[in-house]
Formats: sequence, structure tokens, C-alpha cells
Amino acid sequence: MFKINDNYLKLPGSYLFSNIAKKVDAYSKAHPDKEIIRLGIGDVTQPLAPKIIETLHEAVDEMAHAETFHGYAPDLGYAFLRDTIAKNDYKDRGCDISADEIFVSDGAKCDSGNIQEIFSVDNKIAVCDPVYPVYVDTNVMAGRTGTYDPVTETWSDVIYMPCTAENNFIPEFPKEAPDLIYLCIPNNPTGTTITKSQLQEWVDYANRIGAVIIYDAAYEAYISEDDVPHSIYECEGARTCAIELRSFSKNAGFTGTRLGFTVVPKDLKAGDVSLHALWARRHGTKYNGAPYIIQKAGWACYTEEGKAQLKEQVAYYMNNAKTIKEGLKDAGFTVFGGVNAPYIWLKTPDKMTSWEFFDYLLDKANVVGTPGSGFGPSGEGYFRLTAFGSHENTLRAMERIKNL
Amino acid sequence: MFKINDNYLKLPGSYLFSNIAKKVDAYSKAHPDKEIIRLGIGDVTQPLAPKIIETLHEAVDEMAHAETFHGYAPDLGYAFLRDTIAKNDYKDRGCDISADEIFVSDGAKCDSGNIQEIFSVDNKIAVCDPVYPVYVDTNVMAGRTGTYDPVTETWSDVIYMPCTAENNFIPEFPKEAPDLIYLCIPNNPTGTTITKSQLQEWVDYANRIGAVIIYDAAYEAYISEDDVPHSIYECEGARTCAIELRSFSKNAGFTGTRLGFTVVPKDLKAGDVSLHALWARRHGTKYNGAPYIIQKAGWACYTEEGKAQLKEQVAYYMNNAKTIKEGLKDAGFTVFGGVNAPYIWLKTPDKMTSWEFFDYLLDKANVVGTPGSGFGPSGEGYFRLTAFGSHENTLRAMERIKNL
Repeated sequence: MFKINDNYLKLPGSYLFSNIAKKVDAYSKAHPDKEIIRLGIGDVTQPLAPKIIETLHEAVDEMAHAETFHGYAPDLGYAFLRDTIAKNDYKDRGCDISADEIFVSDGAKCDSGNIQEIFSVDNKIAVCDPVYPVYVDTNVMAGRTGTYDPVTETWSDVIYMPCTAENNFIPEFPKEAPDLIYLCIPNNPTGTTITKSQLQEWVDYANRIGAVIIYDAAYEAYISEDDVPHSIYECEGARTCAIELRSFSKNAGFTGTRLGFTVVPKDLKAGDVSLHALWARRHGTKYNGAPYIIQKAGWACYTEEGKAQLKEQVAYYMNNAKTIKEGLKDAGFTVFGGVNAPYIWLKTPDKMTSWEFFDYLLDKANVVGTPGSGFGPSGEGYFRLTAFGSHENTLRAMERIKNL
Repeated sequence: MFKINDNYLKLPGSYLFSNIAKKVDAYSKAHPDKEIIRLGIGDVTQPLAPKIIETLHEAVDEMAHAETFHGYAPDLGYAFLRDTIAKNDYKDRGCDISADEIFVSDGAKCDSGNIQEIFSVDNKIAVCDPVYPVYVDTNVMAGRTGTYDPVTETWSDVIYMPCTAENNFIPEFPKEAPDLIYLCIPNNPTGTTITKSQLQEWVDYANRIGAVIIYDAAYEAYISEDDVPHSIYECEGARTCAIELRSFSKNAGFTGTRLGFTVVPKDLKAGDVSLHALWARRHGTKYNGAPYIIQKAGWACYTEEGKAQLKEQVAYYMNNAKTIKEGLKDAGFTVFGGVNAPYIWLKTPDKMTSWEFFDYLLDKANVVGTPGSGFGPSGEGYFRLTAFGSHENTLRAMERIKNL
């Protein structure tokens, strides 16, 4: 008689954004006349850039002829894409990462969920609190997190590193040494970040205690300040302790196009065992490559035209971020983030819980945001708005919030 | 100090097709003048059908405008695709499967590797021998297979169901009751299949012992005989014991385009727990949907134009299968498969091992095939050729083999 993976049953409720979608759906059905503005889920709204569209059409045409048709992709991704990533995202920033340390995938969500698989179930994870829920949830599913306490909303075997206004959203080294440290910088959901010298301290710490940092740099394109690192490999020693996750979703609007990559340096080892080899084995056995046409679209992001167009797109969203941040400030809110990231993190007013504020904002302003508590217990009393809406909607949402 | 997932270290050698690629590369470099014909890996060579190309272009254009742009896809896939799958692949064949039991993914390799995750690590798996290596390898990585015996090339906790010429390639119920039964029908690599009444016996068996059948129907489009089932849901009782995996790779040439789906009926339960809910949770937490433009391309496969064009494409490959099968017979080989599947399975001559024959064929005919032993111990002494080459290359490969 077959049995299921009981770890799945430990997961409390369903995935945060599915919950939000259900609440919004219910509200929408009950109030069909209300026009809802969605600044909740971090989904983009601007179309793909012209250079990407042009490249996609060209790649589609290649697939129409036997001579230029592409079947199975190379296990780790096409060289044309990995080479250009290595050059643009790493060599040009002074990072020592080669093309064969880059694994192309269908997005950072999959990679951030799958990466834990190459580690022992006995490893202890540390996460910033609040943070993107996928890190903890996928470790729950793997049986790595112990038992859940519904009162504190924490797992017995997870080390939480609170990032709140009190510590300026900078995680502190935990008392107990973790084995795997998830860092998302710039942070989702708080939109805050740390400096290169602060990250260097984390790299030194990880090397000292023998931990691996899983560094999620999905939002690096939004960094506007000079002393904020775009890659963990800007820090010395990161090649022996860090895996980096990257996404095309936010810098190029690929949320519905799906492309990402993971960097596993060959110097990252457990004794004799190379983590690069383990991840390559997982890629080769459980994955079959991102579509050729999508990898070509990824390549287009790094052309001169592509880069210029994407810079404009990022600027468009960051203008929204500024609108939200200043609008909320004017309305009397305490706000964080929004300078090096497309997320604005606000303190809920009048000691409302995050979900109370969610309902309040949905009901009174017909604006959807994301409850901070959905990202971890220290997110309670906070709320996330994203800059990914259209500028018109962002302005209208701010008007509505100011009029509350 | 972090530790790795030791189960990965148990895997002997690297993934079969990576090994073949390395051997062919080495031969190619040593003999740059030789023109190699690849009938090894099951990769298609014909371009995407015109209707698919047209639809891809249209979908790309949609991504170019904010009004028609698509961001994150619905968790389980777009309704336009799931609805048409439910109608064409199931309702029209008399199978009771609804659209919300269909989970769209980026391919059957990922799904067949990931599906084991929702089951307990204590479950015992049964596999046809020989079979697609991903089933066993992904269970090894999960720690479900016990210890490896390098002499017999078997795992202590895997139940092997030999499928050889002796039993007409029909798996027999194992002595020990398995929890998970992987069936790939039509079979990869043997190209053989079983009848609907034989499959019904497996469904009855699984329901009787409380096992789940993971039914890989990736090759169903190649079925030419009437009494061969296209879906396990043609059998009575399959809704309570079977998960079905489907691919667009072989019927529509999507090996480099990436699309597949998995069916988990809502009646499939472990006590109160619905496997549908578990798989939905995995999808929602560790996956972010197939690209919109690719899902549109999948939809195009089910239009009247698409269906007609794909029927032609399948016929093209099956003509190759016939060429290979008859060519090999004429050359004195004992051959199987090739009637309901694009694979031809041959007995190696002169008691050569599968790898000996691989080297022999590569060296003497410059033809690449796949050693049967790579698919399991009972594949030893057999060899796989695929019908996915161009017709010209297939004819030339047969000429070369006849002249050996």
C-alpha cells in the first residue's frame, strides 16, 4: 500500500499568492462594480522589449525549418546564452565566474525550490524573516524544518533572522550556526538591501562556519546605489561558499516567459564532492532545458539594444516605486525599500495586523497588496506594495490611499 | 558544516545520454572526416508544424503589447490548453478526465522525475526492465532504492520487471507487492506495447494491492494498432490508481520547445489525502508555469490544422521506423518494436554486449544508437535505434548497416 510524503501535510494552508488570489476573486464576485488595482503579487505589466520580440520571432522562424530547427538543448543551456551571461553579469563586474558554472533554467522559483535537494535533509537552514516563502516551504516539503508552531508561525528547525525596522532590515549572524543560509538581496518583500561590505561579512562568516549561502539576486537590476552588490561574487571568497540564483522575470519582464539561471562555482565543495557536479547531475536527470526560443530571448536581453530597452523598463517601474514611496509618506505612512528594489514595505497603521490591513485596503481602496506576515512572522504589522503596475494604476492607487 | 545529499553519490556514472554524447564527441574529434548519423537519443529532426509556427508568432506579438501581455500563468496551466487537452485526449476517447485534473508542465522528463516527491521515501518502486532511466535515477536521488550492486547493475530496493523477447516484452506482476509502478507504454526503449486488456489487468492489480501506477504515455501518438490503449484512463478503475504523464516532445516535435502535462485524478487518494492536492501544492510552490507562448503552441496542436499536420509528421517518422525495421531484418537482425512506437529494438549479433555493439556500429558504420543495457540490466544484449532522424539519413544508415 503506497504512502505519501507526510512532510507535505505539515504545510499550513496553501501558497501565499494562491490565498490572495482567492480572497481577491471572492471580493470581485461580491463587488462586480469595483475596479481593483493589483499591487500585490510581483508580476510585471509592461510588454516584452522590442529587441526581445524581434529575437523571439527570428527564433520561431528557425524552428520552422529542418536546417535551423533545435531539438533538445544542451543540458546546462546554450553556450550563446551562458557566454553572454558570464561576460555581462560577471566578468564585466569583476566577478570570476565562467560560462560553465552557469546553469540555465526556467526560472528562479524552480531553482530556489530545487536547490535544497542536493543537500542533506539533516542540514539546518537560516532565512531572513520576512522573506520569499518558497525557501521555507520547499524545505518543509523535504522534511528539513521540524515541527510547526501555529502560535509563533515558526518551524522548530528553521533559524529565523528577523529583519525589521529595529535592525534596519539587516540580518544578524544567528546564535546557532546554520548549514544553509538563504539571502535574498535586494530583499523580497522588504525592498531593502545591504552594502557590499556587509555582504562580505556574510561571506566570511559562511566560509568560517562551513555554510553555503544561497544568494537570490532576482532583483539586482533595480539597484540604484553604488555600494550595493549586484552579485555575491563581488565579495572575496564567495566562490567557496555561495550559490547565486538569477531571474529574467523582473529585469526583463519574463514572468510569463520563464527563464533564469543558477551559478554554482567549481570551488564550492563538501570535502571532495563538487556541488557543481551534483547540480549538473540534477539538471541532467530531472530537467530538460529551457526552450530554445526563450534562451534566444534571454540572449537578446544582453545585446546593446536589449540592454538600453530594459534599462528604460526598469526606470519605468522605479518611477512607480518613487510614486508609491512618496505617496505613502505624504499619506502619513512609515515606508521602507523602493530605492534598490521594486518593492515598498510599509508599517500598517493603527496596529492593524497585516491581513487586517489587506482586507481594509481591498475593501476601502480596492487596492491589492501583500500582507507582510505571509513572508514570515517578523513581517507581521507590515505590508508590501509592488512597483510593477502600470504608471496610471499606480497613480490612481496612491490617490485612493491618500483619500482613505 | 553543511552536508550533501549522499544519495546522489550512489548514482553510478552519469546520465546515459550524456555518456553517449561524450563517446560520440571523442570519436568525432578523432575522425573529423567521418560523417556520423545519429539514431541514438530520441530527439526529433523535423521542424515545428506550420500551424504551430503561426501560433507562436501570434503569441509573441501578444507579448509585445501591454493589453495582450501575459505575466505569470495560472498555477496549473491556461484553461485554453487544459480544456482542449481534456476534450481531445480524454473525452473524445471516452476517458473521464476533466480539465482541472490536468497539470501543464515544461515536459514529461521533469514530471516523471518530480512525481516521486509526493510519495513517502519508504515506498517501493517497480519498473519495467529495460526502461527510461529517469524513473530509477530520480528515485535513487530521493533515497528510495537501497544499495547498488555493480555486478548485477540493480538496486536492492527496486523491483525489476524484465521485459525481454522471452516474455514478449510484457511485464509480469512482481512477486513482492510494489507501492509505485512505473509503466511506459508504448515502451521506451523497446518500442513494444501491451493491449488494453493487458493494461486493464495492471489497473485491477494496482487497485487490489493499493499501488499507484505512474503511466508514461509519451509515445501514444505513434500507436497504429486498435487494441493498444492511448491512455490508462481507457481502463476501468484507473481513476483510483493511476497518474498519467504526457509529452508534446514526440507527437509535436517539442523536444526543444518544452511542454508536457500530468493527469492526477481527484479520485486518487491515500486515505483522506488527495494526491491531486499534493501535486497542486508542489506545482504552486516549486514551479511557475510553462511560458504563455509555448502553451499557445501546445493549444495549436489540437486545432484541426495542427492535428492534420502532426499526423503527417508522425507518419513521416513511422515510415522511418518501417525502413529501419525492414532494413535490419534484411540484414539478418532480430528486431522488435517500431509498429506502435518510434523505437526499434534489436538483438545484438554474435553475443556482443550492448556497449560493444555501440562501439562497433559507431566505428564501422558511423551510426549512433543507444545501448540497451543503459536502460536496465535486461536490456543487455539489445540495442535501440530511433526513427526520429531525417528519412535520407535513415536510408543511408540502413545502407551502411546492410554493408557491414
